[in-house]
Amino acid sequence: MFLVIGERINTSRKPVREAVEKRDADYIQQDVQKQQEAGADFIDVNAGARVGHETEDMKWLLEVIQKVVTVPLCLDSPDPMVLEMAYERVEQPPMVNSISLEKERFDAMAPFLRGKDCKVVALCMDDAGMPKSAGEIIERAGELIKQLGGLGISPNNVYVDPLVQPVGTDTQNGIMVMEAVKGIMTQHEGVHTTCGLSNVSFGMPKRKVINRIFLCLMMSYGLDSAILDPLDRQLMSVVKTTEMLMGKDDFCMQYLKATRAGIIGD
Amino acid sequence: MFLVIGERINTSRKPVREAVEKRDADYIQQDVQKQQEAGADFIDVNAGARVGHETEDMKWLLEVIQKVVTVPLCLDSPDPMVLEMAYERVEQPPMVNSISLEKERFDAMAPFLRGKDCKVVALCMDDAGMPKSAGEIIERAGELIKQLGGLGISPNNVYVDPLVQPVGTDTQNGIMVMEAVKGIMTQHEGVHTTCGLSNVSFGMPKRKVINRIFLCLMMSYGLDSAILDPLDRQLMSVVKTTEMLMGKDDFCMQYLKATRAGIIGD
Repeated sequence: MFLVIGERINTSRKPVREAVEKRDADYIQQDVQKQQEAGADFIDVNAGARVGHETEDMKWLLEVIQKVVTVPLCLDSPDPMVLEMAYERVEQPPMVNSISLEKERFDAMAPFLRGKDCKVVALCMDDAGMPKSAGEIIERAGELIKQLGGLGISPNNVYVDPLVQPVGTDTQNGIMVMEAVKGIMTQHEGVHTTCGLSNVSFGMPKRKVINRIFLCLMMSYGLDSAILDPLDRQLMSVVKTTEMLMGKDDFCMQYLKATRAGIIGD
Repeated sequence: MFLVIGERINTSRKPVREAVEKRDADYIQQDVQKQQEAGADFIDVNAGARVGHETEDMKWLLEVIQKVVTVPLCLDSPDPMVLEMAYERVEQPPMVNSISLEKERFDAMAPFLRGKDCKVVALCMDDAGMPKSAGEIIERAGELIKQLGGLGISPNNVYVDPLVQPVGTDTQNGIMVMEAVKGIMTQHEGVHTTCGLSNVSFGMPKRKVINRIFLCLMMSYGLDSAILDPLDRQLMSVVKTTEMLMGKDDFCMQYLKATRAGIIGD
């Protein structure tokens, strides 16, 4: 089943930042509930935007969110201290967003991740920068899976993010990342792939159209998770409809349920 | 490049039937011009709905259409006599829609097709009925390519239609036909695939959403042509955006051109 990671609780989004500043629990709780109703399987929580306040903001957000949430959380921070604090407070095994092959980042995160019961978003980034070919992405994915294995994180808890790059910069950037997803999913039994979508359309007109078609294509190449806004009905339509057409929705039950719930946009 | 066969000039559509009855050349010519502007590569012409009038209606339509058309036509009739008449009247080598493996139909069409300079839509239908697996579709495609080859039609002039069946009847019908397209395109160098889309969503709610996602998925499995309404902006958005994301649109030129022409819907 395709996993939707709801991206809305992020202090880089203005209304969330304001709600966090005002300690407006209602706003946050309603947003989380709407994401859940729309089909989010994880709720991403990112408190990084108010510099110097991440720990206290994350702590408050977790307290507030856990009163209403039924799905697990995705703890989104580059700071292992924040993650350690957050990990102690969550009620279900979380997803951790994220680690990469950049040496400094990996070494900082390793002690926190070692032996933890969690899923991990693993970015195909290393000290040489963004990957330049599908082969390079697949190679980095293999290295991430291996190194995370060394910390006791099994492949079925790894969500490889191949890093989406703009087609406006290079027309091959779309197909490159699709081929990479296919390679990762074929070569590594049990591992998952995830990504954000919007980078693909950077600098182009009609970005939402591009993001939707890109999601559908990525799913057809094997992507089994994405970080997105579950309140975007047209994006959720793509998820439900693609699952059904790919033969992964018995008796079209999930699609029909989503239609009745008003989740399928026009 | 993906080929769009514009489906609108069909007397089973009420406004077209009325225009044909009234010999309203303006209506027909405007519709054809709109299809061309929206990106149709072929204009399908079907005069079959007024029983007993097909020959005269087709003749009139061709006269009227050829005054404005710049792209080739797709002659859509099961009657070889009508096709023979039409073939004599077209100014560019046409596409013929269609032949199948049903013995009676094939034998009737063979004398007309032999040695003709045309493209042919070849339906994966035989006397046993609709195909029941991807393997069966691929097998029938091979047989069609072979038999058409015997009539002097080369594989690069064959547009295999794998026959789209409703997912509402069997959830595997979508993925079955996608796998079939992949198999046909992989196993037969130079051959093309085409299809109508709307059968896939028969009996389901929000059919247009399903048809659009299905088109995107079919293209990702190798489909390189479809019979559709080019004036449906959301469907044409799928064509242009998918081509771009699959790396088939150098410098995103076609996508950007379509955006400027207002063809990319929201």
